Amino acid sequence: MTNFVFSIPTTAYFGKGQIKVLGETIKSHGGSKVLLAYGGGSIKQNGIYEETVEQLDQAGLGYVELSDIQPNPRVESVEEGIELYRKNGCDFILAVGGGSTLDACKAIAAGVKYAGPVNDLFVDESGISSKISAAAPLATILTMAGTGSELDMGAVITVGEDHKKKVLLHPLVNPRFSILDPEYTYTVPEHHSMAGVADILCHLMEQYFTPETGADVQDRMNEGVMKAVLDNAPKLLDNPRDYNARANIMWASSMALAGFQFLLGKPGFAFPLHGMGHELSSKYDMTHGVTLALLTPAWMRHTMQTAPHHLPVFARFARNVMEIREQDDLKAAEAGIKALEAFYASIKMPANLREAGVKQADLEAMAEKAVENGKLGILSLLGKDEVLQIMRAAF
Amino acid sequence: MTNFVFSIPTTAYFGKGQIKVLGETIKSHGGSKVLLAYGGGSIKQNGIYEETVEQLDQAGLGYVELSDIQPNPRVESVEEGIELYRKNGCDFILAVGGGSTLDACKAIAAGVKYAGPVNDLFVDESGISSKISAAAPLATILTMAGTGSELDMGAVITVGEDHKKKVLLHPLVNPRFSILDPEYTYTVPEHHSMAGVADILCHLMEQYFTPETGADVQDRMNEGVMKAVLDNAPKLLDNPRDYNARANIMWASSMALAGFQFLLGKPGFAFPLHGMGHELSSKYDMTHGVTLALLTPAWMRHTMQTAPHHLPVFARFARNVMEIREQDDLKAAEAGIKALEAFYASIKMPANLREAGVKQADLEAMAEKAVENGKLGILSLLGKDEVLQIMRAAF
Repeated sequence: MTNFVFSIPTTAYFGKGQIKVLGETIKSHGGSKVLLAYGGGSIKQNGIYEETVEQLDQAGLGYVELSDIQPNPRVESVEEGIELYRKNGCDFILAVGGGSTLDACKAIAAGVKYAGPVNDLFVDESGISSKISAAAPLATILTMAGTGSELDMGAVITVGEDHKKKVLLHPLVNPRFSILDPEYTYTVPEHHSMAGVADILCHLMEQYFTPETGADVQDRMNEGVMKAVLDNAPKLLDNPRDYNARANIMWASSMALAGFQFLLGKPGFAFPLHGMGHELSSKYDMTHGVTLALLTPAWMRHTMQTAPHHLPVFARFARNVMEIREQDDLKAAEAGIKALEAFYASIKMPANLREAGVKQADLEAMAEKAVENGKLGILSLLGKDEVLQIMRAAF
Repeated sequence: MTNFVFSIPTTAYFGKGQIKVLGETIKSHGGSKVLLAYGGGSIKQNGIYEETVEQLDQAGLGYVELSDIQPNPRVESVEEGIELYRKNGCDFILAVGGGSTLDACKAIAAGVKYAGPVNDLFVDESGISSKISAAAPLATILTMAGTGSELDMGAVITVGEDHKKKVLLHPLVNPRFSILDPEYTYTVPEHHSMAGVADILCHLMEQYFTPETGADVQDRMNEGVMKAVLDNAPKLLDNPRDYNARANIMWASSMALAGFQFLLGKPGFAFPLHGMGHELSSKYDMTHGVTLALLTPAWMRHTMQTAPHHLPVFARFARNVMEIREQDDLKAAEAGIKALEAFYASIKMPANLREAGVKQADLEAMAEKAVENGKLGILSLLGKDEVLQIMRAAF
């Protein structure tokens, strides 16, 4: 086990009706004038907007609204939010929505305390966003489970005409608190609920598939969350208003990335599947979780072939998570991947890139962009050729 | 899943040599004059004392020492610490030791900010220590894994001539940070290392064996930590200087009680095994973890008999943790208990109360004291008669 620092600065208020703590908790963090940020307006149809402003009003908190934050949020939304926050003398940010709204608000929280351009705030050579030295206090009300943004220190922002996805990473942008009411996810469309499930699983797998350091506590906890996700996703598919299934998926989303707890004691921070998946989202505006489900099995097979000394970790995944009873490591690992593919099919993920609308002619350019900041991966390093092989295998 | 609030206010610095952060981190929490508390002096033999004061000196921090905190720490040690802290104008508390030293320091941290007697600071009808409204900043350097005190909000203090164990519980006494260096546990004697293992397992089981609310994420994570403990304890027994085994046991200790995370979303907070075990520790000054190992199997069988509708949770434990492959719930549960007994035997726990030196004539008085503040338990409520039955079964 390697050395690590464990810290989860966010408090989570989890369950039905937890929005009742909103006003007082914002005030306890020094908030009086709130930048209230949300997405395309679904919160105005499902009642969450009304409940939120009612709580702000009751607490005597002023607020100014930033609406229309889009999926795969753009830096322009961040800049708009920063301006709005400053112009109106805000002192607190409240993000109501899914990962996109939350991520935009994290960048706003850092941006309002920084004099230079937002572009400075992304991860640099240091491995985190080292230019961030302060951030406005942020809270979130989660309306879609998946990204884990509600309890973590990361954000992904889309920049430029070529829709480049850039990562912001700093503990200061961890939300002060997050309100997690599973009922708020009842109206999320099936496709997005299931893409969230795929996103959660991928967060867990990206922390699981690392070189072995004997971090057993972390790996066994991780396996536990994966199993809870596999068990609850079908229930949610059967009945979108199954409270307990929604609750488990929501808490799995939060636990998956809280303090990157399942990566602690393990080497490195790589997230190669996210690196490749972001290119698909950029090019086709494809839902993030779907891109991950599409690429994961091909990446697993590629890694087993090119770095066979890592086979045991794939065999362990097969046995401990997918419940494969098979002694031979290679057979177990392959059966585990097949079981994972069957799971993705059961939650209605497209079977391959072609079915998802990707054009074969685009693969090479995407592979090139995926590695423009360096090779991806940690079990085996992926340059352009390797990424292209994986994309072709997933096509 | 029931509603809950998740919060883990402690930062953990985990791994070899992490003591290097001590001085600067104390200062970042406003400390300048430290009450340095420790136990019987083993830290002076194994070099941890020297490393600690070297760090304090280098950082230019003053300190005053409180030594000789005993296992099952007494309220008199707490009172002594409070006086020392006040008399010397301290502003920070550093506990170096195992659970006893840490627990005493938590009570000191609350006590120095409270005008009345320490006795007011224990858990009252509210379920927590409601008289606590402030606490001095506290950090810990853990030298023995087991109690989980390094990352939780609880402390157990022994009071009065009859050695009554009283519980203090408040988020304000959570350490600001804990330094967890597995190498610092290399010299812990085998008996105490294994008692720590039993303590960790019991913390996990007390959160696991609750009425079913479908908190799958929490239960699966809990199972994962239990499995990691079962896997690593034998390695530690084989080689007390197995870094990775020490690291996994230490991190399991911390994760088991951090924010009571595995109890979140589940009904109630009961810890009946601790309630009974504390009476054995009081009467015989027996190591805490040993008392838990002695009582757990008897408690499990008693509960399965008196509250058979809870059988599935014991069967699930047997299958998911003890790897029992058996379809029938009753047979699986019983095989799980037998496997747990075999594990306790393998880590050299005494087989029964008699072997541990308990006198049959004392059982009734201990049973009576165990329930003097009310019945114990949550799967089935334990009055004096039930506690006596369990103790007799464990005799």
